[in-house]
Amino acid sequence: MTHRIGIGPNLRKSAFYDATIKEGVASFSVYNHMLIPGHFGNPDAEYDRLLNSVAMWDVAAQRQVQLQGADADKLVQYLTPRNLSSTRIGQGRYIPLCDYDGWLINDPVLLKLAEDCYWLSVADSDIHLWAAAIAHEKGWHVRITEPDVSPLAIQGPKAENVTAKLFGEPVRAMKYFGFIETELKGIPLVLARSGWSKQGGFELYLRDSTYGSTLWNIVKDAGSEFGIGPGAPNDTERLESGLLSYGADMRWQTHRANPFEMGLTSLVDIENGHEFIGRTALVKAQQQGIKRKRVGVFIDDHPEPPGHPVALLCDDEPVGFVHEFAFSKRLQKTIGVGLADIARQDELFIHLNEVRHHVRVTDIPFI
Amino acid sequence: MTHRIGIGPNLRKSAFYDATIKEGVASFSVYNHMLIPGHFGNPDAEYDRLLNSVAMWDVAAQRQVQLQGADADKLVQYLTPRNLSSTRIGQGRYIPLCDYDGWLINDPVLLKLAEDCYWLSVADSDIHLWAAAIAHEKGWHVRITEPDVSPLAIQGPKAENVTAKLFGEPVRAMKYFGFIETELKGIPLVLARSGWSKQGGFELYLRDSTYGSTLWNIVKDAGSEFGIGPGAPNDTERLESGLLSYGADMRWQTHRANPFEMGLTSLVDIENGHEFIGRTALVKAQQQGIKRKRVGVFIDDHPEPPGHPVALLCDDEPVGFVHEFAFSKRLQKTIGVGLADIARQDELFIHLNEVRHHVRVTDIPFI
Repeated sequence: MTHRIGIGPNLRKSAFYDATIKEGVASFSVYNHMLIPGHFGNPDAEYDRLLNSVAMWDVAAQRQVQLQGADADKLVQYLTPRNLSSTRIGQGRYIPLCDYDGWLINDPVLLKLAEDCYWLSVADSDIHLWAAAIAHEKGWHVRITEPDVSPLAIQGPKAENVTAKLFGEPVRAMKYFGFIETELKGIPLVLARSGWSKQGGFELYLRDSTYGSTLWNIVKDAGSEFGIGPGAPNDTERLESGLLSYGADMRWQTHRANPFEMGLTSLVDIENGHEFIGRTALVKAQQQGIKRKRVGVFIDDHPEPPGHPVALLCDDEPVGFVHEFAFSKRLQKTIGVGLADIARQDELFIHLNEVRHHVRVTDIPFI
Repeated sequence: MTHRIGIGPNLRKSAFYDATIKEGVASFSVYNHMLIPGHFGNPDAEYDRLLNSVAMWDVAAQRQVQLQGADADKLVQYLTPRNLSSTRIGQGRYIPLCDYDGWLINDPVLLKLAEDCYWLSVADSDIHLWAAAIAHEKGWHVRITEPDVSPLAIQGPKAENVTAKLFGEPVRAMKYFGFIETELKGIPLVLARSGWSKQGGFELYLRDSTYGSTLWNIVKDAGSEFGIGPGAPNDTERLESGLLSYGADMRWQTHRANPFEMGLTSLVDIENGHEFIGRTALVKAQQQGIKRKRVGVFIDDHPEPPGHPVALLCDDEPVGFVHEFAFSKRLQKTIGVGLADIARQDELFIHLNEVRHHVRVTDIPFI
C-alpha cells in the first residue's frame, strides 16, 4: 500500500526524527501517538543488514511510563501477574499487563532503576492513564510521568562490536535485559542489552531528547566499520523469531487474548499468591483451560499480506485468526502468527481476494 | 511532507476503510490506533466543499467508550468537571476530562443513551483504560466496553438537506448535540446533530461495522444531488472556527494544559460541589488564576507549517507555543492557535528555518 501519512501536530515526532529524515526514511507508522520509521526504501537490504551485520533503529515511540515513589513497588507488582519479588536494580523484566478480566492490555519491559523508581517501556497503549488511575484510587504514593527518554536500538550480530566500541569492552559481559545508567560523551542514557529482535543487540535509552541527532550520528560513525545502516523493527524477522507484537497479535479493542492463550503461562504466578489485576479471572481461566492458543502458520502460495487480521477457517467455519504474515527469505516460506482453536488445527484455510489458501499450523518460534 | 504510511495489522481499519479506498483516499493519519483519512488528493476542493455544499467524512476513529451499569452515572460525573445533573437521554454534551492534577487527558462528546448507559465519543487517548481502572478500584458497577460503533460525518451547509432526504423532514428540528437511536434501510445507527466543524451537519454512528460500505454508498447516493463528496476533518476550517483538537492543541505527554487555560472555564463546575477527578487541583488553579491562555495568532509571511508545535518568542525568550497554523483562504491570512503567557502578548515571533516571523495574538474563533 502506498498511501501518504499526514504529518501534523497531533502526532509526536521522535527525538531521532530529524536524523531519520536525513537518512531517507520512506515510511512511518504510529505508535504511542508518535511517528516511528517503517523502512528506509529497501526493506530487503534492511532485513539482510539486521541478520548479517548491524542496524540502528529509532524506537523512541517505545515510551517510558515512570513510576516513582514509596509505593512504586506495590503498584508495579499489582499491575502484572508476573512475580517481581526477586527483581534487582539494573534488571529488566518482560511483564504482561492485564485488565480486570484477564485480557492483555500491554506487554512492556520493566526496568528497575531504584527501589522506588521503575520504567515501563510500553507497547502501543496509554498505560500512563491506567497506572495513574490505579495509583490514585488506591491512595498509593506513586508519581506517574512520561520522562524525556527515547530508545535507540542497535541490533544484529555485530551490534555488540559497535556497542563495545562506544562504551568499552565490559558491555560484552552484560546479561540479556541487564542495564546500566551511564553516559556517552556527556549524553545521559541508560544502556540495556535488549531489543525487539532475536539477532542480539542493545538499546540506548537517551535521557535528553535535544541530543537526538548527536547520538544518532555518534552511533552511525562508530558502526560504519561494521556496516551499520538505518532500519526499523522488522516484521519478517519478528515473525520468524516468534516475538509478540501488542496491537498486531492481540489488542484489547479488537482481538483480545489472555496470557495463557498467548503462550505466556510461565509469567503468570498464581501459586505465589501476590495480588494483581486480573487475578480472579486468570485463576478461573487456568482452571477451565484454554480453548485457543497462539500458533505459527505456514501459508501456501505466498499471497500478498492484506495489512489486517484474516479469519482462519476449518470446514468454512471460523476457528481463529491469522494476525500477520510475511514471506520469509530464510525459510523460503510464507509464515505467520495467529490464534487458533486448539481442537481444530487441521485442514485450515484463509480466504484472500476470493482465493483459498491452505494453512498449516506449526510451533513458534520458526527459527 | 510525502512519506508513506505503513498499513499493517497494528493499525485498525475503519468500517469505512474499503469505501474510502474506492473514493481515492490519498493520505491517512492515525487516531485511537485506527487509520483516519487525511484528504482525497485535493485539499482545496475539499475545503470549498465543506464550506459551500456538503462533505462526508470517515470519522470512525472517534471511538466510543461505553459505560453501562447501575453506577454509570456516578462514574461519568466523577470523570468530568462539568456538572451533568441536568443531562437528558438523547442529549450530547462536550465534556473535558482531566487527570488528578487537573491536566486535560481528553475532551469527548458524551452521549446519554439511557439512565445506565453512556458513550464517550473520545479524542485520541485510551480513555477505556482510565475509566475501567477507576470504576473497578471504586468498586462501582459499570462495565466498560468499546462497542462496534463507527461515526460517519455529513458536514456543510447542505448536510441538513442530505440528512432530511435520508431520515425525513423532522431531522431539521433536531437541536445541536441532540441524537436519536434509529435505523436506515435496516442499518442500526445513532443519528446526532454534531460534527467537528462549524459548517453544520450530522453524524451517523453506525452500530454494525459490516454495513460500512453500504452506509457510505447510501449517503453518497442521497447526497449526489447536493454535490456531496469525500473529505476529512479539515485543519484550516477548525482553526478558523476555533475548535479544540486534543493531541494538537494540548496533550498530556507533551504540552499539558488545564481547562481554564484552554478557554473551558464555563465547563468546570466547582461551585456546584460535585466530586470529580482533578477537583482539588482545579480549585487551586482557579484561585491562583491562570498565567497562560489559549490564543489565536496571525503569522506574517505565510510560512510552510512544520507539522509540530513551534515556540512563541518575546525578546527571544519562550513565552508559549503555536501548536498549529495554516493559510486561511477566507481570511487571506496565516492563522493558528497556541498557548501564550498572558502578560506578554505583544511583539511576538516564531522562528522557522532560520527565518523570524512576526506573530500577532487575536481572539478565537477567527470567523
